[in-house]
Amino acid sequence: MTQQPSTPAQNTPVTVVGLGPMGLALATALTEKGHPTTVWNRTPEKARDLVARGARLAPSVADAVAASPLTLVCLKDYAALYEALGPVGGAAAGRALVNLSSGTPKEAHAAASWAAERDLAYLDGAIMVPPPLVGDPESVFLYSGPREVFDAHRSTLASLGDPRYLGFDPGLAVLHNAALLGLMYATMNGFLHATALVGSAGVPAAEFADLAVNRFLPTVVDATLVEQAPNLDAGHYPGDLGTMEMNLNALEHIALACEEQGVYTGQPRLMRDIAAQAIADGHGGSNYLAVFEVFRKAAAR
Amino acid sequence: MTQQPSTPAQNTPVTVVGLGPMGLALATALTEKGHPTTVWNRTPEKARDLVARGARLAPSVADAVAASPLTLVCLKDYAALYEALGPVGGAAAGRALVNLSSGTPKEAHAAASWAAERDLAYLDGAIMVPPPLVGDPESVFLYSGPREVFDAHRSTLASLGDPRYLGFDPGLAVLHNAALLGLMYATMNGFLHATALVGSAGVPAAEFADLAVNRFLPTVVDATLVEQAPNLDAGHYPGDLGTMEMNLNALEHIALACEEQGVYTGQPRLMRDIAAQAIADGHGGSNYLAVFEVFRKAAAR
Ligand SMILES: NC(=O)c1ccc[n+]([C@@H]2O[C@H](COP(=O)([O-])OP(=O)(O)OC[C@H]3O[C@@H](n4cnc5c(N)ncnc54)[C@H](OP(=O)(O)O)[C@@H]3O)[C@@H](O)[C@H]2O)c1
Ligand SMILES: NC(=O)c1ccc[n+]([C@@H]2O[C@H](COP(=O)([O-])OP(=O)(O)OC[C@H]3O[C@@H](n4cnc5c(N)ncnc54)[C@H](OP(=O)(O)O)[C@@H]3O)[C@@H](O)[C@H]2O)c1
Repeated sequence: MTQQPSTPAQNTPVTVVGLGPMGLALATALTEKGHPTTVWNRTPEKARDLVARGARLAPSVADAVAASPLTLVCLKDYAALYEALGPVGGAAAGRALVNLSSGTPKEAHAAASWAAERDLAYLDGAIMVPPPLVGDPESVFLYSGPREVFDAHRSTLASLGDPRYLGFDPGLAVLHNAALLGLMYATMNGFLHATALVGSAGVPAAEFADLAVNRFLPTVVDATLVEQAPNLDAGHYPGDLGTMEMNLNALEHIALACEEQGVYTGQPRLMRDIAAQAIADGHGGSNYLAVFEVFRKAAAR
Repeated sequence: MTQQPSTPAQNTPVTVVGLGPMGLALATALTEKGHPTTVWNRTPEKARDLVARGARLAPSVADAVAASPLTLVCLKDYAALYEALGPVGGAAAGRALVNLSSGTPKEAHAAASWAAERDLAYLDGAIMVPPPLVGDPESVFLYSGPREVFDAHRSTLASLGDPRYLGFDPGLAVLHNAALLGLMYATMNGFLHATALVGSAGVPAAEFADLAVNRFLPTVVDATLVEQAPNLDAGHYPGDLGTMEMNLNALEHIALACEEQGVYTGQPRLMRDIAAQAIADGHGGSNYLAVFEVFRKAAAR
């Protein structure tokens, strides 16, 4: 919470639109790093603590966006962006907007056009950490859009974390966001479901987490994924250490064990069906990673 | 591949029944550590390399089980165990059987009774590593059944990895196995699906793996799970840093992004439905981990 010595970039004014848990974390990190910070939120009461820390609450969203060369937008979704920023009009021409709200690649493309019509520079972005890690220089933030807009604001964005530029296509940041969050939810669901399963026999979650997350995931699962990733690019799935058939067998046992123990079966049943689809597609003798083909070829079905 | 100096435990004879990829790895590790190793497999040809390394191929399964105080069974499933070991009859009374085949808690209970009827000591077990890691002292092997059977063979089992005793209930090892493998498949599916999604925009798997597995999973996902596990035991899901509603919103965007990009939507749609169920159950203002309640209360629906 101690203020660090300001570099020139940290004197750059920044505006934050949206003060949910994430917008609050962004504005807090910026004020703490010394940026003159202007904020706006549909519900202005949420700015109270920030104002006590030195942020300025703008009287209107147009005033907020006009106040800084760079505005970070962190709202529920793109619909909220249009609703919140509609009143900005031409007052903010020439400013840059970085939209960190959740959405889809198509929505990011539409928002880039919307911004261009209003003469606003536009980057789409995604925050790959929870609110408490905002401001940590290791925290990954993803951005896509015109390179020169990114370069112009890179040092300011570095106050939030580790800014990574993905490319010109404005949809790339939300696409990566969807992919990484999908991985997060899948892993969390895997852990929570596994914990429910051993919990049915009285094993505490904290005990299971030590075996599952501290031991099993890094040494067995993560190591395999990193090692095998180049084989995905090559479509190469050798089954000599274990076949899809063996894995389908294990998946059937997982679904049955959940049924026996009275734990949710929807998740293991879907995983079993995915492996069965891979076998139906001719991957019975391949290793498990061939389910990649089921995922990426969905459109072709 | 060099033979390590033998301790007394490593002179103990061991039998391995089943020579699929995993049985081969078990028998190979045992011969390499100096155990006189007897093997049997329905398809005897698979023993060829092992015999060249000094293992003995038994002429019958009864001979195999009688040859050693301890027999490891590593077959496709429990049905294969009954089929393969049926002919053993009374010839092996007093020996111990450790069943490492995949199955369910109920099947483990039935196999323990089956063994007791034949005067065989019985442990059920599970191997938490792939074949190349068998024999590594860090590799986790789980066992359940009578403590004295485990203690009698612990030092022999230590030749395969790190033996962990879970308790008297013989179903505990397969239950943990189902849970940990469920986590493994969920995480692998999460990664493979995410890779398919960014792959739809031309991002190589090897590049994505570095961000997703080396960076995102350990710092964001795993850290949260370990930190939050005690809250699962307490049923405590504070939503102040992000609510289930916010997460459902993100999950809808993931499903839509997959649809836009032509990638498999079944997995994100199920995850969205699970979060929606948690909200229907009254957890809309909780954090995401409240989906644990959906998983563990399935039987109550
Ligand atoms: N929290 C996290 O862990 C996290 C992590 C990474 C990314 N994100 C992303 O960050 C964004 C913000 O998330 P959040 O956690 O702060 O909470 P959120 O509930 O997704 O968004 C809350 C913000 O959206 C505003 N809003 C909603 N509908 C609006 C509308 N129609 N018009 C104007 N404003 C509207 C809210 O204003 P009011 O205060 O007036 O309701 C509030 O400022 C989301 O896209 C989320 O996916 C969040
Ligand atoms: N491979 C892995 O990565 C791994 C990791 C952990 C645990 N496991 C578990 O280890 C066990 C063995 O797996 P695996 O990878 O070696 O391959 P598998 O395909 O699951 O099992 C192959 C073994 O089962 C035998 N078998 C199948 N049906 C039989 C029957 N009706 N009668 C007699 N024998 C029968 C096979 O004999 P034939 O050779 O005659 O066909 C072979 O010895 C499984 O339960 C698996 O879940 C495997």
